[in-house]
Amino acid sequence: MLTLRERQKQRRRDRIFRTAINLFREKGFHQTTATDIAKASHVSRGTFFNYYAYKEAVLLDFGAQLLGELREQALAELNQGSPPLEVLRRLWNRLAEVSERERVLLSPLAYELLNPDPQRAKAAFEALPLGDLIAEILYPLKIQGRLRQDMSLERISRSMADVYLLSALRWAAYTPGRQLKDEMNKFLDLMLEGALSREVGKPAKAARTSS
Amino acid sequence: MLTLRERQKQRRRDRIFRTAINLFREKGFHQTTATDIAKASHVSRGTFFNYYAYKEAVLLDFGAQLLGELREQALAELNQGSPPLEVLRRLWNRLAEVSERERVLLSPLAYELLNPDPQRAKAAFEALPLGDLIAEILYPLKIQGRLRQDMSLERISRSMADVYLLSALRWAAYTPGRQLKDEMNKFLDLMLEGALSREVGKPAKAARTSS
Repeated sequence: MLTLRERQKQRRRDRIFRTAINLFREKGFHQTTATDIAKASHVSRGTFFNYYAYKEAVLLDFGAQLLGELREQALAELNQGSPPLEVLRRLWNRLAEVSERERVLLSPLAYELLNPDPQRAKAAFEALPLGDLIAEILYPLKIQGRLRQDMSLERISRSMADVYLLSALRWAAYTPGRQLKDEMNKFLDLMLEGALSREVGKPAKAARTSS
Repeated sequence: MLTLRERQKQRRRDRIFRTAINLFREKGFHQTTATDIAKASHVSRGTFFNYYAYKEAVLLDFGAQLLGELREQALAELNQGSPPLEVLRRLWNRLAEVSERERVLLSPLAYELLNPDPQRAKAAFEALPLGDLIAEILYPLKIQGRLRQDMSLERISRSMADVYLLSALRWAAYTPGRQLKDEMNKFLDLMLEGALSREVGKPAKAARTSS
């Protein structure tokens, strides 16, 4: 059980978190300063930095929550017997929906994963293990020998997460008017089935139904 | 023909360019300031910025030259009748070699392609049209119906360039001790053939020989 002191700390962290996310949504991420967040959540600037060493760390908490929910849904579907490729596609579509809805927060979050400071980038990858989730979903296919065997499941899954990262980042920065979902689904097909036709003359799409 | 004035400008630009690249290699990119470059190439700081609006713009020239050479080689091979997939794989291997050799310059160059300022990122993409080069190489396959037809050649090619970008970036930042070439070749296979086995039970690698 948490002590009173720990509960107070947790409540304060929650308050700072919610206040920060609301401010990011209202004013934009880059327009919101640590001082703004501290003021609006009734703590000192120093206290804010005790909870979050940098502004982007609030976004990591936010992304980790969203990804945690997506993971629970996906694992529940797998447990209910849904085929892994269907579960992956549903995850992909939900990821697209969340990204479209949370575009203002998505863009700085995606850049944090690419932070030139290796420690910051590492912290971001650990907070947002999308590649690991994809690997969990694809694991049954690996066991069945339905994945290519010259690459590890981890590598395959990480490249899929990478492709999501770059398409979401470009979409958020340049073409928010278009749908991300369509773009993401095409890239998923490409990663699953490859650029080369499965049979000469036939579109590769046919392979999707057989999986 | 160039006027005397234009030739002088061109010579000065070359001098600044070569001086800057040498300094980046000796001292590191981030450790080299615009003032350092200006001093070493005997121009004022203002003159440096007349030629290159920001330090990374020197890297764009550098990358554009390298990519231009790779493009010439690839197109010559295509003209001599080499199969497109072989030409692509040779380009990929040369790209890996160049990236390994020029690691110090590669990392800031890759980050420039992901600059949060859309104008800067756009300038970088226009200077380094790797996706366009891949599309040129794959075009004969498209004509022959050997590429998937539910995605444009441009989209397929751009995703391959993206995969190179992220693998090179991670390699340069985190695992320079390992070989980039092996990693890049596996990702190329993944993009060409997909993560799903072509035949259940058989490794997808078999498809490579048939192409």
